[in-house]
Amino acid sequence: MFLRTELTMKNHQFGRITESLADELAELRTIRFLDASQIQETDPKKALANLLSRAFSPITQDAHTLTDRFKRLLATDEVDLATFFERPDLKLTPAVFARLSLQLLAFEPEVDYDLDQPLTAYASLQLPFFEVQTFQHASDVWHAWYHLLTTHTKHGETYLDYLAQLGYFRPFYNVTTQPIFFNGKAQPVFDPHSLIREVVYVEAPLDSDQDGQRDLLKVQVIRPQVTETGYRAPVLYTASPYHLGTNDQWGQALTHQVDQALTEKPVTPAATTSEPKPSSVAPLPPKRIPAGYTQEASEHFAPENGYHLNDYFLSRGFAVVYAAGIGTRGSQGFRDTGSVAETLSTVAVIEWLNGQRQAFTNQCDQLAIDAWWSNRHIAMTGRSYLGTLATAAASTGVDGLKTVIAEAAISSWYDYYRDHGLVAAPDTFQGEDMDVLAAEVFSRRLDAGDYLKVKSAFGKTLNAIAKAQARANGNYSTYWDARNYLNQLSAIKADVVVIHGLNDWNVKPRHAYQLWQGLRDLPITKKLILHQGQHIYINNFRSLDVTDMLNLWLTNKLFDLDNGADTQLPAVLVQDNVSPETWHTYPDWPSSAQAKQTLYLGGNQLSPNPGPSQTQMTTYSDHLPDQQFNHYRKQIAAWQHDLLTDELGSPMANNRLLFKGPKLTQDWYLNGVPQVTLTISSDHPFGLVSCQLVDFGPAHRLTTKPTLLAKNQLSGAYDWRKDDLVEFTLNPQVSPYKMITKGHLNLQNQTSLWQANAVNPGQFYTVTLPLQPTVYHLPAGRQLGLVIYATDFATTIRGNQPIHYTVDLTKSRLDLPLN
Amino acid sequence: MFLRTELTMKNHQFGRITESLADELAELRTIRFLDASQIQETDPKKALANLLSRAFSPITQDAHTLTDRFKRLLATDEVDLATFFERPDLKLTPAVFARLSLQLLAFEPEVDYDLDQPLTAYASLQLPFFEVQTFQHASDVWHAWYHLLTTHTKHGETYLDYLAQLGYFRPFYNVTTQPIFFNGKAQPVFDPHSLIREVVYVEAPLDSDQDGQRDLLKVQVIRPQVTETGYRAPVLYTASPYHLGTNDQWGQALTHQVDQALTEKPVTPAATTSEPKPSSVAPLPPKRIPAGYTQEASEHFAPENGYHLNDYFLSRGFAVVYAAGIGTRGSQGFRDTGSVAETLSTVAVIEWLNGQRQAFTNQCDQLAIDAWWSNRHIAMTGRSYLGTLATAAASTGVDGLKTVIAEAAISSWYDYYRDHGLVAAPDTFQGEDMDVLAAEVFSRRLDAGDYLKVKSAFGKTLNAIAKAQARANGNYSTYWDARNYLNQLSAIKADVVVIHGLNDWNVKPRHAYQLWQGLRDLPITKKLILHQGQHIYINNFRSLDVTDMLNLWLTNKLFDLDNGADTQLPAVLVQDNVSPETWHTYPDWPSSAQAKQTLYLGGNQLSPNPGPSQTQMTTYSDHLPDQQFNHYRKQIAAWQHDLLTDELGSPMANNRLLFKGPKLTQDWYLNGVPQVTLTISSDHPFGLVSCQLVDFGPAHRLTTKPTLLAKNQLSGAYDWRKDDLVEFTLNPQVSPYKMITKGHLNLQNQTSLWQANAVNPGQFYTVTLPLQPTVYHLPAGRQLGLVIYATDFATTIRGNQPIHYTVDLTKSRLDLPLN
Repeated sequence: MFLRTELTMKNHQFGRITESLADELAELRTIRFLDASQIQETDPKKALANLLSRAFSPITQDAHTLTDRFKRLLATDEVDLATFFERPDLKLTPAVFARLSLQLLAFEPEVDYDLDQPLTAYASLQLPFFEVQTFQHASDVWHAWYHLLTTHTKHGETYLDYLAQLGYFRPFYNVTTQPIFFNGKAQPVFDPHSLIREVVYVEAPLDSDQDGQRDLLKVQVIRPQVTETGYRAPVLYTASPYHLGTNDQWGQALTHQVDQALTEKPVTPAATTSEPKPSSVAPLPPKRIPAGYTQEASEHFAPENGYHLNDYFLSRGFAVVYAAGIGTRGSQGFRDTGSVAETLSTVAVIEWLNGQRQAFTNQCDQLAIDAWWSNRHIAMTGRSYLGTLATAAASTGVDGLKTVIAEAAISSWYDYYRDHGLVAAPDTFQGEDMDVLAAEVFSRRLDAGDYLKVKSAFGKTLNAIAKAQARANGNYSTYWDARNYLNQLSAIKADVVVIHGLNDWNVKPRHAYQLWQGLRDLPITKKLILHQGQHIYINNFRSLDVTDMLNLWLTNKLFDLDNGADTQLPAVLVQDNVSPETWHTYPDWPSSAQAKQTLYLGGNQLSPNPGPSQTQMTTYSDHLPDQQFNHYRKQIAAWQHDLLTDELGSPMANNRLLFKGPKLTQDWYLNGVPQVTLTISSDHPFGLVSCQLVDFGPAHRLTTKPTLLAKNQLSGAYDWRKDDLVEFTLNPQVSPYKMITKGHLNLQNQTSLWQANAVNPGQFYTVTLPLQPTVYHLPAGRQLGLVIYATDFATTIRGNQPIHYTVDLTKSRLDLPLN
Repeated sequence: MFLRTELTMKNHQFGRITESLADELAELRTIRFLDASQIQETDPKKALANLLSRAFSPITQDAHTLTDRFKRLLATDEVDLATFFERPDLKLTPAVFARLSLQLLAFEPEVDYDLDQPLTAYASLQLPFFEVQTFQHASDVWHAWYHLLTTHTKHGETYLDYLAQLGYFRPFYNVTTQPIFFNGKAQPVFDPHSLIREVVYVEAPLDSDQDGQRDLLKVQVIRPQVTETGYRAPVLYTASPYHLGTNDQWGQALTHQVDQALTEKPVTPAATTSEPKPSSVAPLPPKRIPAGYTQEASEHFAPENGYHLNDYFLSRGFAVVYAAGIGTRGSQGFRDTGSVAETLSTVAVIEWLNGQRQAFTNQCDQLAIDAWWSNRHIAMTGRSYLGTLATAAASTGVDGLKTVIAEAAISSWYDYYRDHGLVAAPDTFQGEDMDVLAAEVFSRRLDAGDYLKVKSAFGKTLNAIAKAQARANGNYSTYWDARNYLNQLSAIKADVVVIHGLNDWNVKPRHAYQLWQGLRDLPITKKLILHQGQHIYINNFRSLDVTDMLNLWLTNKLFDLDNGADTQLPAVLVQDNVSPETWHTYPDWPSSAQAKQTLYLGGNQLSPNPGPSQTQMTTYSDHLPDQQFNHYRKQIAAWQHDLLTDELGSPMANNRLLFKGPKLTQDWYLNGVPQVTLTISSDHPFGLVSCQLVDFGPAHRLTTKPTLLAKNQLSGAYDWRKDDLVEFTLNPQVSPYKMITKGHLNLQNQTSLWQANAVNPGQFYTVTLPLQPTVYHLPAGRQLGLVIYATDFATTIRGNQPIHYTVDLTKSRLDLPLN
């Protein structure tokens, strides 16, 4: 009846800060682990008993019942805690404290640690040691207890957060009027079931649906009850176009056919696609004149399907704001994916939260309502499109936006739907494009009464997007340039946290890399976390205290608490791809200590030394038998397998070049942008090149998706929304290889993305193809592989054309950044 | 960015009851859709506007804001609802009401229905029609509205439950002291965040750890706040051995090696394994003498990771009780899987809830506490082991237990870990057995202080189980007979709902079948739901109103409300395996209208006519090359594929016999127990037979796991725990076959499970192998297949022995129950 997963637990905590004993004691008093009488105590064991009675207070306040619980804990490996407290001959030692802590932290005796070796376990589990050599005075216990409260349990949260889930902070609910901080982080002292949920309509400086009225945008506010009595809350704002519904079937109907031939692009002197006329260029209608002012909203909403990171902060004194933006259900306007108007509409909400833009209680009364409850300190959060809009907003330099946490965010829309002159789909979304996405999120369509009035006009917007994205062309253009946030990074004033998956082939790693490069020299604080996931969020992983780090960060940025977050958190954190639950810190990405390794192509080999200098020509075809082609169209995993396998008889054997390096004699750490230089010809006046870098060698590799460790384990507050605890674990099956990174280019864009070159059939061109950036640990014994091919069933269009490519191996190479 | 799933929506509601108009109006007043003044209204449109303003009351109570919302709804296909209310020329018609309803029910215009054909959509979506031909009077609207409130939305819940999620019932929270019923079902009028959670320790009539004291069992009670002021609550009790933790690693370590040879069993006149001496046979220590009495518990607990079905009822006036039972964390005693003691400990909690057994506030004070808040009407709920214990408890006939809802429950432990004389693992749990499970759930081990005292004694219990289960033997015995609830079914007084997956190869369909057979003639009400799932629960499926049915059922059984549940709900409900979202009703299982179809074996054919009568011998081997054997051990899916595929060159071709019937010219409906009769010999003095019945033919079949339709869609109360909306959908990939059912037997148990026969090498025996019961729709064009083999990598032990089996096809056949 049981599924079992073997794990190597390793705890990483970067969000813990070190305080003086005086501060520790003061904070313990603030969160009521000590009171005026207890602070008089001198005896270590009595002090410990007092603390434990506080820790168990949500469970029982009855002395005998508490003793019952103490009997279930071991103090020494032979004496239970109740007996330990009764026996004056038994002293409190570091081993006793550590053993007790391990039990309280839910580590499993005999499984996670040996009961007679608790201090060893502290080391092997990487738990931060409390550094008390002898418990001579109560203050030693208080210090160690403070330490325990900030230490992670087996389930990836601090012991204090675990106690919060048990109800420790319930007595604070009705008496607390201001946030309470502990170890530099806000605590859950506000009842998440007394939150106020209300709707306002922010007036954006846009008339994107050209109805002669500025667009009103529906904004959902969730604020603590104590804002009613004077407290002013910082705001976590998530702009999510998906939040109020999506048009999945419509999007599916609009999805482009990808089984199409690559064609020759016109060689024109400049980009031929032009930016569709932005709506915001039309004369902007005047602001609405308020008919009056109110502090009371007239519309409310039911508890949302929230974003776990935001949910965590809802009991900690933060407000959370969700806005789906222009063109979504309950809002006005039309959304043009990635446009300036989209950014302006995103920013309008921040301006309202910062007191610089007006909003109304509904769409008709013009009764103005201010964000009077806001402390004017705003952060943006969210993953994917949500994180993208956070990046977009930050790139305007809008006032009030103190930080953005951009998870798996797009930094340039060209890099999302195109690659180096080619249409290149995000993973699993073949045929999607800017127009499809615009239709998907146009949730005004879900309100039949609203949609009836704008159906025809929005159809025109959609057509304009379809034309401007110029799917048949693939070049970069003014259209794409206007949707490239990298152009505006210098305006950023907000501090930035970038979080991205090194295996994210939906929003590919280049997005984070380019953003990081653009932020590097700005006078802001920036942090980067690179994990081994695909397109996921990571605040529920056991091995890393993401939630604590972000609490430290947001408490610093939004409450202005001087907790040292800027220096406490590492600049760059990277999850190891070989050892589970292992994280490395770096000063930068690429890491500053760079070595370059060049590998040369010859035979089927990758070699550190150039081969013979005579020409070595190798040809491969892009054409497959119809049956094979149709099979791969439907079974992309089978295609990927056949592409990479070097088993004899792979149906892809003639459709790719595969090179393998020697077995490594030492570990290699790739860090940055691997680059392939090819001297290549096509027998057509056009062509495409794809490359994959591969880790070859049988191994148990990390699972591609996180393994569920404990369902609904995490919530961070009493009786509140729960999240699953997960972790990447080693796959029990051996895999023969893993793709490290990949890249694509259109041969006609070998010199410029803006402009196509002519390609003469049979003529050789030397092209440089930067693969997606990576950090990759390739252990000794593995072999690095490079696969060169054309059509990518997961990514490019698929014409199954009889194009033949020839590579001159002597003039081709692979350049690797190592550290 | 989007995953899309095509669906054919079909709504099935069996939990809706029909009421008189007078009752409808009375109930609408009870839930405040009508008040004393509104009931005076006569105009249909005004009545509708009043109802809508009530429906939107959680969102807004402001008239202009409400008008804003009305503008987003369409009344006709050209006029929005706000305008409709303003224009006296526009009348309320059934089409207008239906169109409005479809919008309120969240069906998507242009996707799920045509705005100009709302009545057609009612039919195609299978929504119950409100049966008003003309809206002449307000009462027509009230009737149609009552109907709407009880109709399912696109998201698989009643519109009233959807309004509850929006907050409709919040105003009831602090003023309601008794449950409120609507359409025969309890409504969420109690705040789920004011629930009282407390722990008591029930004294079981057992001393299973033989410490000279009766076992105290930790029981977690969750009861409505209003029990403090006189209300007496019915109880949903879930006995879950997993609830307080499990020993996964320990279980893994104890898991039996299954790559072992089948051996010859001794032929003995009677079962040689004996029942381990049950702890309860030792002289039972006396009851504890209470030191006093109290109504207040001294221990509390934090909100549990609940069971969604229970969660739904927590705001509806029900109490919920969780108990993990003997041997679990916080309880005393040792658990002996499936034993009488386990059942007694499960029942002890019911006896306490029914006022017939004592409990204490903790393990030391002997302060007695009664379940004074209970109305003494108890139901048991739960899936798998949880449902098993519900069946076990029901089979004692204990007073107070009014009904059990047994989902995927074991009805005889022999059928869980054994099959017809063989060790036979539950799906994905090869090597698990009674002892492994006992260790898994012995969560006292997680409390180091408690475990230290009982470690050695529990080890002996575990050894006794390991011996008694007699894994090397596989015969039925007194040990298994004492763990077969089917022996005691005649004692059942509780009404029973059985829910089981027809694709559940963990707790196999036989468990539900045997239970149903045993219940059939008892003077109780019983219902059966068979779904297409594996080992899952089904209260969150869109196509069937399981939650409503169970609300009707539990309201009837535990509140004694005369809502006709016994006759309203169909006796047997079966989900179709061909058409998604399709459910059939039957009077019984097997369906009463039975036809038997016999198919004969010959060549590779299954034929309705016997072949030539001369002997036709066919031989297969159980031995595989080592490499192939090792591959299958690790890749059971590959083995299953190779076993069933009739592609040339399957590595299993010599290790199985595969017979296929002709393409069906009409649909077949299998219903009951298919049975294989084989005349077979082994070249060893022992042997095993496995058979799979197979549906051959390329088709889009239902997904094996439910497809996620909407994450966190369902909760049934405001600001409360959410469940995902799911459904089985057609797999976009074509599959060539699907296993329908399977079965196994040990050749030495051809005449008796209790006693092994001798098997003479080379001698033919005619054996009858009943496969697991099923209900299966085999459409015209498909071919029925039968595969005969020996070792089952997923189920049996795997010795890779050179055993050869020979089947005399002329004396073998397949008997199918059809309807």
